[in-house]
Amino acid sequence: MNPEEFRAFGHRLIDWIADYRAGTSSRPVMSTVEPGSIRAQLPKAPPDAPESMDEVLRDVENIVVPGLSHWQHPRFFGYFPSNGELSSVLGDYLSTGLGVLGLSWQSSPALTEVEEVTTDWLRQMVGLSDKWSGVIQDTASTSTLVALICARERASRYSLVKGGLQTVESPLVVYVSAYSHSSVDKAALLAGFGRDHVRVVPADSAYAMRPDALKDAIRADLAAGRKPCAVVATTGTTATTAMDPIGALAEIAREHGLWLHVDAAMAGSAMILPECRHLWQGIEGADSIVLNPHKWLGVAFDCSVYYVRDAEHLVRVMSTNPSYLRSAVDEKVKNLRDWGIPLGRRFRALKLWFLIREQGVSGLQARLRRDLANAQWLKSAVESAPDWRVLAPVSLQTVCVRHEPAGLEGQALDRHTQAWADALNRSGAAYVTPATLDGRWMVRVSIGALLTERSHVEALWAAMREAVKDV
Amino acid sequence: MNPEEFRAFGHRLIDWIADYRAGTSSRPVMSTVEPGSIRAQLPKAPPDAPESMDEVLRDVENIVVPGLSHWQHPRFFGYFPSNGELSSVLGDYLSTGLGVLGLSWQSSPALTEVEEVTTDWLRQMVGLSDKWSGVIQDTASTSTLVALICARERASRYSLVKGGLQTVESPLVVYVSAYSHSSVDKAALLAGFGRDHVRVVPADSAYAMRPDALKDAIRADLAAGRKPCAVVATTGTTATTAMDPIGALAEIAREHGLWLHVDAAMAGSAMILPECRHLWQGIEGADSIVLNPHKWLGVAFDCSVYYVRDAEHLVRVMSTNPSYLRSAVDEKVKNLRDWGIPLGRRFRALKLWFLIREQGVSGLQARLRRDLANAQWLKSAVESAPDWRVLAPVSLQTVCVRHEPAGLEGQALDRHTQAWADALNRSGAAYVTPATLDGRWMVRVSIGALLTERSHVEALWAAMREAVKDV
Repeated sequence: MNPEEFRAFGHRLIDWIADYRAGTSSRPVMSTVEPGSIRAQLPKAPPDAPESMDEVLRDVENIVVPGLSHWQHPRFFGYFPSNGELSSVLGDYLSTGLGVLGLSWQSSPALTEVEEVTTDWLRQMVGLSDKWSGVIQDTASTSTLVALICARERASRYSLVKGGLQTVESPLVVYVSAYSHSSVDKAALLAGFGRDHVRVVPADSAYAMRPDALKDAIRADLAAGRKPCAVVATTGTTATTAMDPIGALAEIAREHGLWLHVDAAMAGSAMILPECRHLWQGIEGADSIVLNPHKWLGVAFDCSVYYVRDAEHLVRVMSTNPSYLRSAVDEKVKNLRDWGIPLGRRFRALKLWFLIREQGVSGLQARLRRDLANAQWLKSAVESAPDWRVLAPVSLQTVCVRHEPAGLEGQALDRHTQAWADALNRSGAAYVTPATLDGRWMVRVSIGALLTERSHVEALWAAMREAVKDV
Repeated sequence: MNPEEFRAFGHRLIDWIADYRAGTSSRPVMSTVEPGSIRAQLPKAPPDAPESMDEVLRDVENIVVPGLSHWQHPRFFGYFPSNGELSSVLGDYLSTGLGVLGLSWQSSPALTEVEEVTTDWLRQMVGLSDKWSGVIQDTASTSTLVALICARERASRYSLVKGGLQTVESPLVVYVSAYSHSSVDKAALLAGFGRDHVRVVPADSAYAMRPDALKDAIRADLAAGRKPCAVVATTGTTATTAMDPIGALAEIAREHGLWLHVDAAMAGSAMILPECRHLWQGIEGADSIVLNPHKWLGVAFDCSVYYVRDAEHLVRVMSTNPSYLRSAVDEKVKNLRDWGIPLGRRFRALKLWFLIREQGVSGLQARLRRDLANAQWLKSAVESAPDWRVLAPVSLQTVCVRHEPAGLEGQALDRHTQAWADALNRSGAAYVTPATLDGRWMVRVSIGALLTERSHVEALWAAMREAVKDV
């Protein structure tokens, strides 16, 4: 495709996206296509001859779009807000159009330096001290894997340059919470610790990790000759946005030489609001933090920022230095390939840079405060309705609810919950995520899509009350 | 930013990219800015109030672009071709604009199913049997890490659900080649094997792994009570595009129960040409393959396709199944979160789908054949010039050269090589990558940028001959 064809189809695509975003609210939020139905509409073999872009765009409209659940929809209350603010989308368009790679600083200096600057802006925005250095990863899953590998290497005194985890004298142990994200468990297993060496520390009634229980677990492992290695705390758990007590956990980590990794993937964005920072009090005592601007903050996916206090250790664990990647300036620059797993690196900082500049910190703060207020509104509405319950503290923008009509409990209540959530999702009126809490199904309402105003939350609440009638 | 503002700035951006791509050849290929100079031009703190997009785009032009090395330039001969074909760029624009995520099949069914179809198209294009299943990862570094973790788990009978690598009875060993990519060594270390358990198998005179040397290494490890686990072979090494003998290595792998992972990140694209497939003869005997369509083939970075024969094993190693990610159709669909490390997933298949359809397989084949012919032309030109040498077989599009004037050898020759390569790069006329081979510096010329025609290769050759005169 030559630049003039790109210009023509590019303009059409821009108009299409502008119309899509302007008209999202008229679409059903969740796709209800059957498994395999998209695949069945596509040719089994690739075309030998070129096809026209008109055909391609027609298939997008007729085949792809009906198979989408619309995350940018104002009544999307599922999972977490995955906001792709349009200024950030343009930043990503610039990156993809330029097509430059940051294999090393030299391979595109601006890519590295804009990333340094923007991750440092974000550091200031969330109130972290200048002891922290940031780097963009793809997702929190990857950031947490990096953190646990770094923890493993600190505790094992760089076993990777020797026998690896295969020759450690005392097995290393990782501590997680019963409400840690699934990626934390996965990271520990992928890093080679083994499930026998992952301790699930019990939570308190607010679903936060109990420091006393962590202490007990550490003591038991020490007594058994194992070596405590890392604890992963969460600022804003997936199920309920519970807040693990970072300060208390940091103290225990310091006492026992554990690596403290804080998963603030979702809730880290809230720290741009000074009034929220008490929720991760003690954060300066952590070793690493992951914070996903591609969630609530509005950066187009993917942009997960990993902050570390000891960048030198990260580089020592991750670095490779083959001849074909060296340059004369290596001593003077950051080579971000040594800050994570992948070698190749897109110019992802542009989408963060565009967002912060176009919105301004004050603009981002205003939007997040709107969402916090909407969550409090829904909480009050649910609490004051008969047979409805709010199940967990609403510290941010997630409200966990259950409809508990008299006489329904146990599995019958679970069936009722799943039935109305499913009916609500299938109606197209809203998208919510059912999940379990204390062994029972409930419904998470995650507020914070870009377009979600109070009216949409009111509409959701009305639809929820309708949904429970019909099942 | 509202959709109408997006429309206005989006159109400007499309025009800017179209002009950038049309005018790339008039820019110096490699940026020569000083370390820190981009950073110094940017504010230290984020803006509190919104800035205008005009300001942002002005900074792109004035600050960012001078700090770029232009990978889409017709005289870019560095590293490897990282082609962002403009049709693929549009596919990525659609993905980012839609802003949908594939956390599970249900969270956007078309995202998963288009990925299934397009990775299967690519499988057919490179001549693999239907025993293989593909999934998109970000980079080959990640794909290879996934492969080695899967190998580790097969050899250790799922140690991850028990004591992990920390309680294996006999240490597991990984075999790589002296010319494996740096990411292979990195993956083995990150997966916890430890450097003591990574064997570097010697290569032959064509820089390919020696099967007899692999056998010897396996025998030695078995004799010492260690357990051979995996061998990583390369189809198209980074330094010289050397071809490890896949068939012979597969036989050894089968005999000893080793996992065979094939890194065809760069050269895998060539397999869309039937005449190249003899270069990975025996590939069906591998367990996993990584192939990066974001290199030579033309998909906008990032799009690395990981193929496995035993998808069930991959899922068993990578799967997580928390309540908030479950859906009623899980038994009937692929949940691609269980096919790799990250949970979040962009609609990356669109950029592969757009490319294949807009170019057609025949169009892609024609471009790659052009590049192969250009490489042969350069090889002949270099070989027939006095004092110049081609250092390795030119099996694809990479030509490794050295200028060896009489009387220069050893470190003096190294200094000469580095000096002329640096002078060439700094002149802005071309971008080449110096690297070491057999302990001496040489220059890799990697041909295959989208815009690179014979005339550009001729211009490069002229510039090379000039460069050696001036140093």
